[in-house]
Amino acid sequence: MSQKLQVAVAGAHGRMGTVARQALVEGGEYCCGLSHTAESPSRIFTTLDELWRCSPAVLLDLTTQPGSYEISLAAVKRGIPTVIGVSGWTDEQRAELDAMAKERGVGALIVPNFSVGAMLMMRFAQEAARFFGEAEIVEIHHPAKKDKPSGTSRETARRIEAASGSAPAIHSLRLTGSLAHQEVIFGGPGELLTIRHDSLSRESFVAGMMKAVHAVVRLRGLSIGLESI
Amino acid sequence: MSQKLQVAVAGAHGRMGTVARQALVEGGEYCCGLSHTAESPSRIFTTLDELWRCSPAVLLDLTTQPGSYEISLAAVKRGIPTVIGVSGWTDEQRAELDAMAKERGVGALIVPNFSVGAMLMMRFAQEAARFFGEAEIVEIHHPAKKDKPSGTSRETARRIEAASGSAPAIHSLRLTGSLAHQEVIFGGPGELLTIRHDSLSRESFVAGMMKAVHAVVRLRGLSIGLESI
Amino acid sequence: MSQKLQVAVAGAHGRMGTVARQALVEGGEYCCGLSHTAESPSRIFTTLDELWRCSPAVLLDLTTQPGSYEISLAAVKRGIPTVIGVSGWTDEQRAELDAMAKERGVGALIVPNFSVGAMLMMRFAQEAARFFGEAEIVEIHHPAKKDKPSGTSRETARRIEAASGSAPAIHSLRLTGSLAHQEVIFGGPGELLTIRHDSLSRESFVAGMMKAVHAVVRLRGLSIGLESI
Amino acid sequence: MSQKLQVAVAGAHGRMGTVARQALVEGGEYCCGLSHTAESPSRIFTTLDELWRCSPAVLLDLTTQPGSYEISLAAVKRGIPTVIGVSGWTDEQRAELDAMAKERGVGALIVPNFSVGAMLMMRFAQEAARFFGEAEIVEIHHPAKKDKPSGTSRETARRIEAASGSAPAIHSLRLTGSLAHQEVIFGGPGELLTIRHDSLSRESFVAGMMKAVHAVVRLRGLSIGLESI
Repeated sequence: MSQKLQVAVAGAHGRMGTVARQALVEGGEYCCGLSHTAESPSRIFTTLDELWRCSPAVLLDLTTQPGSYEISLAAVKRGIPTVIGVSGWTDEQRAELDAMAKERGVGALIVPNFSVGAMLMMRFAQEAARFFGEAEIVEIHHPAKKDKPSGTSRETARRIEAASGSAPAIHSLRLTGSLAHQEVIFGGPGELLTIRHDSLSRESFVAGMMKAVHAVVRLRGLSIGLESI
Repeated sequence: MSQKLQVAVAGAHGRMGTVARQALVEGGEYCCGLSHTAESPSRIFTTLDELWRCSPAVLLDLTTQPGSYEISLAAVKRGIPTVIGVSGWTDEQRAELDAMAKERGVGALIVPNFSVGAMLMMRFAQEAARFFGEAEIVEIHHPAKKDKPSGTSRETARRIEAASGSAPAIHSLRLTGSLAHQEVIFGGPGELLTIRHDSLSRESFVAGMMKAVHAVVRLRGLSIGLESI
Repeated sequence: MSQKLQVAVAGAHGRMGTVARQALVEGGEYCCGLSHTAESPSRIFTTLDELWRCSPAVLLDLTTQPGSYEISLAAVKRGIPTVIGVSGWTDEQRAELDAMAKERGVGALIVPNFSVGAMLMMRFAQEAARFFGEAEIVEIHHPAKKDKPSGTSRETARRIEAASGSAPAIHSLRLTGSLAHQEVIFGGPGELLTIRHDSLSRESFVAGMMKAVHAVVRLRGLSIGLESI
Repeated sequence: MSQKLQVAVAGAHGRMGTVARQALVEGGEYCCGLSHTAESPSRIFTTLDELWRCSPAVLLDLTTQPGSYEISLAAVKRGIPTVIGVSGWTDEQRAELDAMAKERGVGALIVPNFSVGAMLMMRFAQEAARFFGEAEIVEIHHPAKKDKPSGTSRETARRIEAASGSAPAIHSLRLTGSLAHQEVIFGGPGELLTIRHDSLSRESFVAGMMKAVHAVVRLRGLSIGLESI
């Protein structure tokens, strides 16, 4: 992390956005934010026009769909390298983003999960699915979590199905006291293989986020996942 | 296990019955069996009358309901101490069995699970439910297993509900390569407590079965569970 | 937690003491503290005399030995109900504390672990040790943890040895990213029984601490463990 | 597994050799065996000369060092494709075997572990070690197991050290009731990644063994691991 960057955060008041802003402020790399409500000392604005006026070196998009598509495409169109921590991009939207990023000579990076452990869990699950005919997923989160099953478990299931042709069942447990845990269990003749990820604090994704922000300035076109950097 | 007993096995051709007969034969304690089809060298009969003619010292009932109620009550009525490895006895049936066993001066012992580990898992789960407001059960078995969720998981859930007033969700995983596994996870402020049982071979319940058979001859009336002996 | 109490914290600058003070301040029940260095706005003193001048209703002793023995005995002698979160009390010291508490008509409560889950893990391990001949303990903590093996694992091992006559091996793993985790695995013919505790935030022991503080005012003589209240 | 092969087993009376012979006999592919004591109905001989007289199509070497080096090299020299389930081959010995196999135009295949799950566990551990700075290994086996730590855990540790520069600690648990279990736990900022393998019956390595035997006839020179076929 040689060079200091000025990073704008879209979705600045969300759970991830709040953590990202705090880490960027601590690292002296926070530029400004975008949200539904403005907040003056934190330089959070409600329109893209205001955001661009801050001249961010990188956009970190932590919004949700359909806003993400619009905001990130606009950033890339203006020649701003963009890291996107939002799922739900269609193949057509990805192709459009890739074409625009290549045209403007900048990078765009979609990261389904900023945690190194979660990234490896998904990659290993995809690989194991080529060897094992059966898999099931157990994910445990706090009862306050809004989505059920979790986005990570759905993405893991999608990759297992792509590799093996058969979709695993997802079991969602919601327990007070838990943080973010996922287990993928593969069964074959006489053996079980289990890949488990426990995310125990925000540090697990802050490190990946900062890595992504610093890597995207050296990329051209669209890349997918922490593993590509 | 001082004294050698002559034990009759009802449900002699079932999965449990087959294991029980083999263990009893090895220990020189097999008397005869009851099943839907007779098998002459193994002394398996199709009627209770034939079974009684062998004069068993103990009956080991490994059938299913509604047969279990009928067979075990008949045994106790004849003054034969009876170990019952079958679930689904109603409170009325239990009371009737208890009264009959007391009248005849013999013991009857209902054992929901012959494995010491499974017994402790259920007891600990019941105890923990008094302290934790939330629980979920994950049970993993071979895809060939007929019931889903497993009997042990349903019994565990019943006990947790009795202790805490709220029934836990049961998640059933069916994976080739697995044997018999169950995890009960309790959640509370800032912590998780997990009780896990792995049953990895038939030895886990054969030992409990033999213990029950030798204990029931010293009991009077109805007792429940391995923990009572 | 009806009545508000004025609680003094000994060991006020330690890891546990800091957490306790914060929780007590939030609940409006913080009186004053004792430590090696004074801190005026937090009312932390360096001598017992200053502490008594605050007239605390309860003393929460979170120091270490040999200080704990001295401080808690002095409090009880003054008729102040005392909760002691410090291990290493000998049988003689306990007897002395019990006698003094009875004489003064107040309660003393030694709590080896304020977390309900840890308490149950130890109790279940002790109970399971009566049925299983073999056990091993795996404890996982952050590399910054000072003691190795952890105090909880040593206390668990002590109880297993008391129940079964044989001391389990303790395996200590130190991994960045972990918080406080312990697994006790029992082995018997054909089966494994595992009891696992994951302590994922300070809430897990704050709740037990507050419960102990409010319970001790209704006790007489010495009691041991959260399970006694 | 189209074509039936005639397979000779070296180490025919060992634990693995016994399982291999049984599976080969069942599949109609057993040729003969080599061991320290002859056994006539099973066609087990004590000298290589006798073994060659059976004209095996493939040799399956399940001996130990230093015998494995000698026996497998002799087989390859005679133009017999050889599967080697023995660890402890030095780099020089591997090079010599490779050269000989190429000269004779046959395949040699060293397989450290015939289980697909164990192979993937080791491969994933090696990959994860590139991303995580810390790892520890916990392996659980039956008390009757002779080596401690297990060969698989030592091989896993070797690969983690090769990838990360730092050797993980290995914790060996020996518990009645367990079969063969291994867990590799990686720690990083705010997260843990765990890879676990449970080998619950001999089927887990029989399948890999048969696959290897049928694959080696199509190979040339030395290959390493199930993943190469």
